[in-house]
Amino acid sequence: MKDCEWCNLSDEDKKYMLFQTEAWEIFLADKQDYIGRCILVCKRHVKSLYDLSAREWMDLKNVIDKLEQGLAAAFGATMFNWSCLMNDFYKSDNPNPHLHLHVRPRYKNPVIMDDKVFLDEEFAHHYNPKKAFKIHEADFQKIYLLLKNHISD
Amino acid sequence: MKDCEWCNLSDEDKKYMLFQTEAWEIFLADKQDYIGRCILVCKRHVKSLYDLSAREWMDLKNVIDKLEQGLAAAFGATMFNWSCLMNDFYKSDNPNPHLHLHVRPRYKNPVIMDDKVFLDEEFAHHYNPKKAFKIHEADFQKIYLLLKNHISD
Repeated sequence: MKDCEWCNLSDEDKKYMLFQTEAWEIFLADKQDYIGRCILVCKRHVKSLYDLSAREWMDLKNVIDKLEQGLAAAFGATMFNWSCLMNDFYKSDNPNPHLHLHVRPRYKNPVIMDDKVFLDEEFAHHYNPKKAFKIHEADFQKIYLLLKNHISD
Repeated sequence: MKDCEWCNLSDEDKKYMLFQTEAWEIFLADKQDYIGRCILVCKRHVKSLYDLSAREWMDLKNVIDKLEQGLAAAFGATMFNWSCLMNDFYKSDNPNPHLHLHVRPRYKNPVIMDDKVFLDEEFAHHYNPKKAFKIHEADFQKIYLLLKNHISD
C-alpha cells in the first residue's frame, strides 16, 4: 500500500532483518529491553489477524517455531511473550494499521554476552511496556548475529 | 495432565464458556477491564505455541476470526490486543504451563450497556496490565450473553 510506511521499508529499515518467509519478514526489534526481542511483519497490508489467509497463518506458525527454537538456542530463553497489539496506529484519525507481532523472550537466568550481564528483572510477571533500556550498537549487532546464526533454515 | 488445574476445570470454572472447538475452549475472562475480554484455552496440555499441531493452529485461526467478528458486532470493538504470555506459571519452581491466549478488545468509543458507560481510557496505547476494575455480576452476565449471542456457529 502506497501510503503505508510498513509496506515501504527502506534497505536501512531492513538492515536488521533476521530472515523472511513467503508471508513474513522478521526483524530484531530496535528496543532490546528483553534480549532477542523481535518484530514479525506481514508482507501483505492487512489490518488484523482476521484478515490473514490460511496460508499466511500457517506460515506464521513456521516463523514462531523458528524463533522459539532460535531464541532458546542463542540466549537460553526460558519462555516467550507473544503479542499482536497495533495500538500505535490508532493514534491517527485515519488509522491504516499494518499487521505485525512482537516476541519478547523471557529469562529465568541472566543472559551473559562477553563481559555484559542482562537481567530479566520482571521474569514470571507481565513484561514492562515502559522498561527503560539502552544498548550499545556493538551489543545490538552481537545479538543480531548470534540470533541469525541460530535460526534454522 | 493430572496435576494441571487447566486440564481439570470444573463445571463451575466452565460456567462462562462462550464456545468450544475441536482444540480450544473459549471463556469470558473473569476480569472485564476491557469489555469482552476473553481467554482461549488449548484443550491439550502444551506449554508453548511451538508445541501446537498444525491442526490446533488452524483451529485457533477459526477461533480468532469468530471472536474478532463477535466482539465487533456485540460491543463495537475497534480493534483487538492479542497476547500469549504464560508468565504466572513461571512463578513456580516447577512450572507446568498450559497454553492459553488473551484477547482484549479495544474501544475508540464508549461501550454503552443499558445505563452503564464503559470507557477504554488507554485506547491507542498499550493496555494497562494493572487496570483497576470492578464489575457487577449482573453486568458480567449481560456481557456474557450478549457476546455468546453474537458468536457465529
